[in-house]
Amino acid sequence: MKKITVSMLMLFSVITSAQKLKKDIFHIPGHENVEEYIGYNHAVKVGKTVYISGTVNGMTDDMESQLKAIYQRLNETLENYGITTENVVKEVIYTTNLDEFKTYIPLRKEFYKGNYPTATWVQVDRLFIPKLTVEIELVAVLP
Amino acid sequence: MKKITVSMLMLFSVITSAQKLKKDIFHIPGHENVEEYIGYNHAVKVGKTVYISGTVNGMTDDMESQLKAIYQRLNETLENYGITTENVVKEVIYTTNLDEFKTYIPLRKEFYKGNYPTATWVQVDRLFIPKLTVEIELVAVLP
Amino acid sequence: MKKITVSMLMLFSVITSAQKLKKDIFHIPGHENVEEYIGYNHAVKVGKTVYISGTVNGMTDDMESQLKAIYQRLNETLENYGITTENVVKEVIYTTNLDEFKTYIPLRKEFYKGNYPTATWVQVDRLFIPKLTVEIELVAVLP
Repeated sequence: MKKITVSMLMLFSVITSAQKLKKDIFHIPGHENVEEYIGYNHAVKVGKTVYISGTVNGMTDDMESQLKAIYQRLNETLENYGITTENVVKEVIYTTNLDEFKTYIPLRKEFYKGNYPTATWVQVDRLFIPKLTVEIELVAVLP
Repeated sequence: MKKITVSMLMLFSVITSAQKLKKDIFHIPGHENVEEYIGYNHAVKVGKTVYISGTVNGMTDDMESQLKAIYQRLNETLENYGITTENVVKEVIYTTNLDEFKTYIPLRKEFYKGNYPTATWVQVDRLFIPKLTVEIELVAVLP
Repeated sequence: MKKITVSMLMLFSVITSAQKLKKDIFHIPGHENVEEYIGYNHAVKVGKTVYISGTVNGMTDDMESQLKAIYQRLNETLENYGITTENVVKEVIYTTNLDEFKTYIPLRKEFYKGNYPTATWVQVDRLFIPKLTVEIELVAVLP
């Protein structure tokens, strides 16, 4: 009787653990509190797919500095999962000024190093705070 | 000879059935006709991934009521697949007023109950009908 | 000694090949140079998922012609992977005029032939070049 109960408990435990999604979460270092306050995770890996939040940087006002800081954050994020731009398959760029963004294509190419994802670039009204000019969202996949 | 033909038909049937993508579709209850008229499905599960359409609610004009109705619809959608916000890995919020949306962060946190996805929030010109102020698109993953 | 070295090299080769993501890339025929110049791939398949870039067509000014050209490009893309609209699970439509886009719902339905994905439609400020009025991004999944 006892044996059956223990077996059932073990079975229940296996079923329960199987039902819980395994997520590998990444926060931008030093941003843990901001992410908790707003309510999001900078990146989440499930299975072989890494979803990366729309990444911004509001330390400066100009697009070039914002972009450089964004690419640094994206590199840290990819490195955390042991991957590179070779693994990035999808990019959405939201900017408040597409013509200006296009002048930074060389900067973007330095980030990708010849490994290009699919891309969607749109000009929107506004991002999270008024001074933000560009936001980059990625999906990456592990081998 | 006959035996070979039957075997070949069976093989053909196996190949054909293997080539058809298995989709588990969900419509918002009572919205089946609207979804058919416009031409979309509210949610589609393929493999372990659930794609959820940009969810809106135009029964009211104000953002708070719209958000509450949207979260109810999203909860119904997740429940249909036997999952919760714990399984949501990606969120895109399109709003016509980001500053107003930010005042509802507590409401959004009630929905997520501490399980946060990656997030991209942008302010756009307009949504499906003029009075809509917010639209939420999710990707969720089953264990 | 030599045997061990060869075995180690073979092992190293297996590990290296395992760490490289297999991507099946598709360029719009004749657009290879444009995609390289801007720095993106029109479509990338990883595993069973096909990510398709926001698709536009700037040969004409009016939305109807642009849409027809976009659907032709999307059909070519799906065909390249041996799939159809039955495999499309997620669509995001960015347009500069949602009310006008809605008048082309019948045209969109001709493309989908009754197989609908999840959908998010938003009106944005501007697309890649000023005359573009509509951009369609898809995710498709193989069986």
